[in-house]
Amino acid sequence: MDEFEFIDHIKQRTYKQNSVVKGIGDDAAIFRPTTNDVVTAVDTFVENIHFTSKTTTPFHVGYRALAANISDIAAMGAVPTFYLVSIVVPSEIGEETLLQMYAGMNDIAKNYQMDLIGGDTVSGEQLVISITVIGYLSTQIARYRSNAKENDVVFVTGVLGDSAAGLHILLNELSVKDGSYFINRHQMPEPRVRFVKKLQYVKRIALNDISDGIANELRELAVASDKDIIVHDEKIPIHPSLKQFNTELQYRWKYFGGEDFELVGTVGNRDWLDLEKVAQEIGLKITKIGNVTLKQAKHPQVLLWKDNSLSLLKNEGYIHLK
Amino acid sequence: MDEFEFIDHIKQRTYKQNSVVKGIGDDAAIFRPTTNDVVTAVDTFVENIHFTSKTTTPFHVGYRALAANISDIAAMGAVPTFYLVSIVVPSEIGEETLLQMYAGMNDIAKNYQMDLIGGDTVSGEQLVISITVIGYLSTQIARYRSNAKENDVVFVTGVLGDSAAGLHILLNELSVKDGSYFINRHQMPEPRVRFVKKLQYVKRIALNDISDGIANELRELAVASDKDIIVHDEKIPIHPSLKQFNTELQYRWKYFGGEDFELVGTVGNRDWLDLEKVAQEIGLKITKIGNVTLKQAKHPQVLLWKDNSLSLLKNEGYIHLK
Repeated sequence: MDEFEFIDHIKQRTYKQNSVVKGIGDDAAIFRPTTNDVVTAVDTFVENIHFTSKTTTPFHVGYRALAANISDIAAMGAVPTFYLVSIVVPSEIGEETLLQMYAGMNDIAKNYQMDLIGGDTVSGEQLVISITVIGYLSTQIARYRSNAKENDVVFVTGVLGDSAAGLHILLNELSVKDGSYFINRHQMPEPRVRFVKKLQYVKRIALNDISDGIANELRELAVASDKDIIVHDEKIPIHPSLKQFNTELQYRWKYFGGEDFELVGTVGNRDWLDLEKVAQEIGLKITKIGNVTLKQAKHPQVLLWKDNSLSLLKNEGYIHLK
Repeated sequence: MDEFEFIDHIKQRTYKQNSVVKGIGDDAAIFRPTTNDVVTAVDTFVENIHFTSKTTTPFHVGYRALAANISDIAAMGAVPTFYLVSIVVPSEIGEETLLQMYAGMNDIAKNYQMDLIGGDTVSGEQLVISITVIGYLSTQIARYRSNAKENDVVFVTGVLGDSAAGLHILLNELSVKDGSYFINRHQMPEPRVRFVKKLQYVKRIALNDISDGIANELRELAVASDKDIIVHDEKIPIHPSLKQFNTELQYRWKYFGGEDFELVGTVGNRDWLDLEKVAQEIGLKITKIGNVTLKQAKHPQVLLWKDNSLSLLKNEGYIHLK
C-alpha cells in the first residue's frame, strides 16, 4: 500500500455526524457545529513512555489513546464528535500493525458516533500517536475545574485504581482473581460521556477526568477553584478484588494510578441527588467522597481523613510506565 | 521549570480572537465560531525527516511547521484562527530550544491574530512537532480541489522553487547571488492568507497549496476535478536568480520542490481578472500558467508544453530532506 492507498483504506466511506461538510481528502476538513461552542484538546502517546508493546496490542494503543482524548471532552461537559490522528511510524512497524491501531480507534469512536476527519502519517524512529479531539458543548456553562464552591459535594464515578492494577498484572504476568477485569479496564477504559450528557440540565458542576490519579485531579480542582477539598479515605471506591493486593499498592493505585478515566467533580448539595439519579439510570456507580471547604492556608489544599486523622494528600503524581 | 511552569510560560496571557471562550488551562479549550463552518487539519514534522538542525534553527522549526498548517487552511479558502501543538522532546533538547520553537510559532501566529489554545509536551527519543490548526470559513463554498472546470485558467501565486533552492544553499553552504533571499523563503515562508481572504466574493475557485511541489498539487487538482490540466513550462514563474543554478536543478525545484507554500488553483475566465486585481492590490505576483481541459484518457492527466511538444508531467514527488 502506498500513502494514497493507505489514506483510502482508513478514510471513512460515510460520516456519522451530519455536521461534516468535508471529510478527509482535501487540504483540511470542514464541519458546521450544531452547538454554539466547540471544544478541542490534543493528547500524545509515545511508545515505551506511555505504553509498551509488552502490555498493549496495537488495537489497544489506538483504543486507549482515543479514550483519553474523549475523556477530556467529557470532563468539559461536552460531547465528542471528531478526531484527527497524527502517527509517527518507525520502519519496523508494518502496515497491519498500523491498521490495527486505527481499528482500535474506530472501535471506541463508533460508540460515540465520532468521525475521523483528518490526519498525518509520517516516518520516524519511535512510535508516536497524537490525537486531536473536537466536541460540541451544549451546556450553558462548561464544566470548568474552577466551578467548585464551598460546601459542594465531592464525587467520583466508578471505582479507582483498576487501570494501574491491570498494568501491574500485565507487567508481572500475574494470575489473580478478576485479572481479566482489571486488564480490560486498563486496555479499554470507558470515558463517562453518557453520564455527562445526561447532566446537561444541572447548572453548575466542576469536573476533571482521572487521567493522572485522583490526588492530582483533586489538586487541580482545588487550585482552579481556590478552595480546600477534604476527602475520606474509606469512601474512595475500589473494586472488591483490589483488596487482594497489599495495602500499599492499593493506596498507590487508588490515589496515584492514572488512566482510569473516571470523573471526579464537585456539585452543590441540592444537585447531588440529581447526579445520583442519573448515575442510577445508566447503571454507573457514583460515590460521595468528601466536601469543598474554604481554604485554611494561603494556598488551596487537598486534605485526607484517614485513620481518624486529617493530613495533606500529597501529589506523588501519576505512575508513569517505566 | 517543571511542567506547570512551562505551560504557564507558553500560555498566552490574553487571546486575540474574541471567540475564545476558554483557552489553555482546563481539560480542553472552548471557542465559539463566528462563521458557519470550521476548518481543521493536522501536520507533523519529524527531525531528520522533515527538518534538520543543520539547516533549521529551533525558531524556524516552529515557524515553518505552523506556516505549513496555515497554508492548508488558506488553501481551503478559510482564515486561520487557532492552533494546538504537540511536541515530543528528546532529553538532549533543553528548555531554551523548546521555548525558541514556541517563539517561532508565535512569530507567525501573530501575523494572523492566531491563538494557541492547546497542546501536549511529552518526552521521547526524537523531536516531533505536530500542529493542529483551526480556521473559520466565510465563503459559501470552500476552495475544494474538485472545483476545477473545463476552460478554467490555471494560476499560481509568487514564484516556485525558492524553498528547495534555499535548502540546497544551506545544505551545501553555498555563497550565491540572493542567497539570503532563498534561505529566507525556505525558513520563513509566507502562506497566502491575505490573498484568499480578499477573494471571498469570487464564487468558485479550485485551490491547493504547494507543499509537495506543483507537479503533485496539479495532479491532485486534476484527479479531484476529473479533468486534464495543461501547463506551459515557460510560464512557470521563478525568481530571476534561480537561473544561476543549472537547468536540471531549476526544473526539479520548480516542479518538485516542496514547501514554497504558494497557491495553485483554477478559476473561470471571467473571474481571472478579479484575481489579478486583488493580487495587484496586495503586491502579490500571480501568473496564468495554463488551462483546464476535458480529460483525454481514462484517468485525469497533467500535461506540460515544453520545447514545442506536449508530454506528461510526471509526479516525481516531493524532494524529501534526506
